[in-house]
Amino acid sequence: MMTEVFGEFLGTALLVLLGNGVVAGVVLSKTKNNNAGWIVITLGWGIAVAIAAFISGNLGPAHLNPAVTIGMAVNGTLPWGSVVPYILAQFAGAMLGSLLVYIQYKPHYDVTEDTAAVLGTFATGPAIRNTLTNFISEMIGTFVLMLAILSFGLYDMPAGLGTLCVGTLVVGIGLSLGGTTGYAINPARDLGPRFLHALLPFKYKGDSDWGYAWIPVVGPIVGAILAVLVFHMF
Amino acid sequence: MMTEVFGEFLGTALLVLLGNGVVAGVVLSKTKNNNAGWIVITLGWGIAVAIAAFISGNLGPAHLNPAVTIGMAVNGTLPWGSVVPYILAQFAGAMLGSLLVYIQYKPHYDVTEDTAAVLGTFATGPAIRNTLTNFISEMIGTFVLMLAILSFGLYDMPAGLGTLCVGTLVVGIGLSLGGTTGYAINPARDLGPRFLHALLPFKYKGDSDWGYAWIPVVGPIVGAILAVLVFHMF
Amino acid sequence: MMTEVFGEFLGTALLVLLGNGVVAGVVLSKTKNNNAGWIVITLGWGIAVAIAAFISGNLGPAHLNPAVTIGMAVNGTLPWGSVVPYILAQFAGAMLGSLLVYIQYKPHYDVTEDTAAVLGTFATGPAIRNTLTNFISEMIGTFVLMLAILSFGLYDMPAGLGTLCVGTLVVGIGLSLGGTTGYAINPARDLGPRFLHALLPFKYKGDSDWGYAWIPVVGPIVGAILAVLVFHMF
Amino acid sequence: MMTEVFGEFLGTALLVLLGNGVVAGVVLSKTKNNNAGWIVITLGWGIAVAIAAFISGNLGPAHLNPAVTIGMAVNGTLPWGSVVPYILAQFAGAMLGSLLVYIQYKPHYDVTEDTAAVLGTFATGPAIRNTLTNFISEMIGTFVLMLAILSFGLYDMPAGLGTLCVGTLVVGIGLSLGGTTGYAINPARDLGPRFLHALLPFKYKGDSDWGYAWIPVVGPIVGAILAVLVFHMF
Repeated sequence: MMTEVFGEFLGTALLVLLGNGVVAGVVLSKTKNNNAGWIVITLGWGIAVAIAAFISGNLGPAHLNPAVTIGMAVNGTLPWGSVVPYILAQFAGAMLGSLLVYIQYKPHYDVTEDTAAVLGTFATGPAIRNTLTNFISEMIGTFVLMLAILSFGLYDMPAGLGTLCVGTLVVGIGLSLGGTTGYAINPARDLGPRFLHALLPFKYKGDSDWGYAWIPVVGPIVGAILAVLVFHMF
Repeated sequence: MMTEVFGEFLGTALLVLLGNGVVAGVVLSKTKNNNAGWIVITLGWGIAVAIAAFISGNLGPAHLNPAVTIGMAVNGTLPWGSVVPYILAQFAGAMLGSLLVYIQYKPHYDVTEDTAAVLGTFATGPAIRNTLTNFISEMIGTFVLMLAILSFGLYDMPAGLGTLCVGTLVVGIGLSLGGTTGYAINPARDLGPRFLHALLPFKYKGDSDWGYAWIPVVGPIVGAILAVLVFHMF
Repeated sequence: MMTEVFGEFLGTALLVLLGNGVVAGVVLSKTKNNNAGWIVITLGWGIAVAIAAFISGNLGPAHLNPAVTIGMAVNGTLPWGSVVPYILAQFAGAMLGSLLVYIQYKPHYDVTEDTAAVLGTFATGPAIRNTLTNFISEMIGTFVLMLAILSFGLYDMPAGLGTLCVGTLVVGIGLSLGGTTGYAINPARDLGPRFLHALLPFKYKGDSDWGYAWIPVVGPIVGAILAVLVFHMF
Repeated sequence: MMTEVFGEFLGTALLVLLGNGVVAGVVLSKTKNNNAGWIVITLGWGIAVAIAAFISGNLGPAHLNPAVTIGMAVNGTLPWGSVVPYILAQFAGAMLGSLLVYIQYKPHYDVTEDTAAVLGTFATGPAIRNTLTNFISEMIGTFVLMLAILSFGLYDMPAGLGTLCVGTLVVGIGLSLGGTTGYAINPARDLGPRFLHALLPFKYKGDSDWGYAWIPVVGPIVGAILAVLVFHMF
């Protein structure tokens, strides 16, 4: 199991390096892609998932997401004993990936005065704060993610194509469902970097918005479990 | 047949959730992707079709569109007895998908004063109102859709690739032929949510433009049937 | 051979309908995608090629381009006797496709006062007029097109993937080499619609720029033949 | 080995023609895609890699990048005796590709007064000059490139799909990690054209920024070797 757990760690690190990397490029000051728009963010995150899944998919199932891991355990695909080690590896990976973004973009953090933009390169936040609809946003996004991943498994796709489909799926979820909360759809991707944000020094640092932090954790887990239940109606 | 009908319902719900979701994100106020442009809308709708087809394609043929269902019956691919149940399921699914968008984006509907934008997150409307050319727009768009879907079937593509091709096709139709009427190219996708728009309460609500409603219903059906006729010249 | 010739006609009609359609949407007034940018134009043209090739590829080789047809004859892939019928069909198809764009976008032509924009929805024109470098632009673009198409043929790709590759190729040529002349890279796509532009009535009509017309005809043919010669060095 | 070396020359020429071509289109004055944005640049470079790899992949391994060539030698995939000829061919190809961009865009170079933009169509430069983080940027970007390429090799993908994956990978690296230094991630792509920039005449010519030139050479090589070491932990 060590190989799979290392795969989850490495894959989630790459996922968050590339995913938070594109956010850093778009929202931090004086970057080459400053203000490059939603198409850049959503395509960046989608390809991030595909690359991370390709690399870590040689080591294990490449969930890279505690909600998917829990969903797969509920589904009976993953032994429950693997859940905690996977999730710990995912959180550790997410923090490493986010730390690398911090290092690479350090000179840009130093000139970015907008503290909400700085937090946005670590964790998600709502466009309009509304506990119920923000929760529903994260739940629906992860429901679609999980239901599609389970469905992909029913096709006998050639090697590699399924991974490209997952990347395309994440682009689509971002485009279509990301406008309200920024589509965390992954507890590790959000909570790990948020914790890092609280720890790191910044020239312009705001708070880490811990009041919102539970929504991108619980919403995705509920959404993933719901997807497994609907999938069993098939 | 119940499984196929459920597939049409679920698939069309996902299609409209993701498709109208991207429109909601782009046109409603204070979203993260407000005003994100045509590339976001067309890519969002195209991936919406691909995801919905992947998920519901395990349950049935995944038409997700009454014009395609009627075209397939004319073509002899689908028994005529399936047409009405499929179409009813597609309309019900489209309404459910659109309702989910309404719920997820509720706080944004509350601050969007542009009533045409609100309607645009449910149903299509013409850039310039002109019965003849608006009708032709919807007819041509669906003609290309149907002719391409029939043509894809002649290739022995590996599992999954054909579904990605359909998504790419819908991106292309949106980019190339969507500029005049917003490319409904699907009666259920347009009429179902329009009906819902008439029923739902909004802080800023305009009329549902029923005078235009027949065009994205009849235009696509005529276009799909024309495509079947041309296809039989092959 | 009648089936192949019909395939070239139908495919080129679809190619130009979708290709000039995206230009019409982006440059004509009051469309939904007015001013939507280069990414929309290049992606639209690339997917146009893929869709047209998928549909007409069931009928024949789907060259859809006289430069490719001549290149294939030079290469020995196509009998010389097919060249003239193919090219005539391609020109007729390109004119039909362009006529359909004119009909669909008629109300928008009526309100577009920029006569260069109107011509741009039919035929290409240079960003900076310079006979030598404009010619070189069209030659290089078609050289890459032809060399890549010949190279794709050496891979044993699964059905459908090669067609997606050709679409991706045309997106890439547009992005990378289209900035100078608008990448006709196809004599039929340019000369056929230019002829139509000269014939059709417009509210705001400029001249058809016949002085430039030979460049997107001769440049592509020279580029395609050069590609065949380089390919034979393999 | 002559065929492989010619493949590296031809492929790198095409890579840089298409890659620097898209930069020229976006940053030079009076082009059709002037100021078309980061999505155009990153998609253009990614497809450039895919096209160049498709064409030269019939002749050899299509590294098109000295960092990849060195990494493959460290990995034991490539005999060390091939390293120097490959790299020389890659540098010569990169210079030829860049020269073709210069010729095609000559009238636009003549009207572009921004000398940094002119240099940017040849070689990369940092958004904020910082030796340590600029070096880390190039190192991380090439680490991801090399690790993913090695990982792709472990999947039994159908012909052509792996090449599309490499193109997608380069789009993703650009979107996510390119915001700081413009992602050279390839010594030949940067140093070859920089040398050409120093040689060529321009109406508005700035210096070639030789002080920065070692970073996009050494950073990528270190990153590629690191990726091989991590890959052997698999």
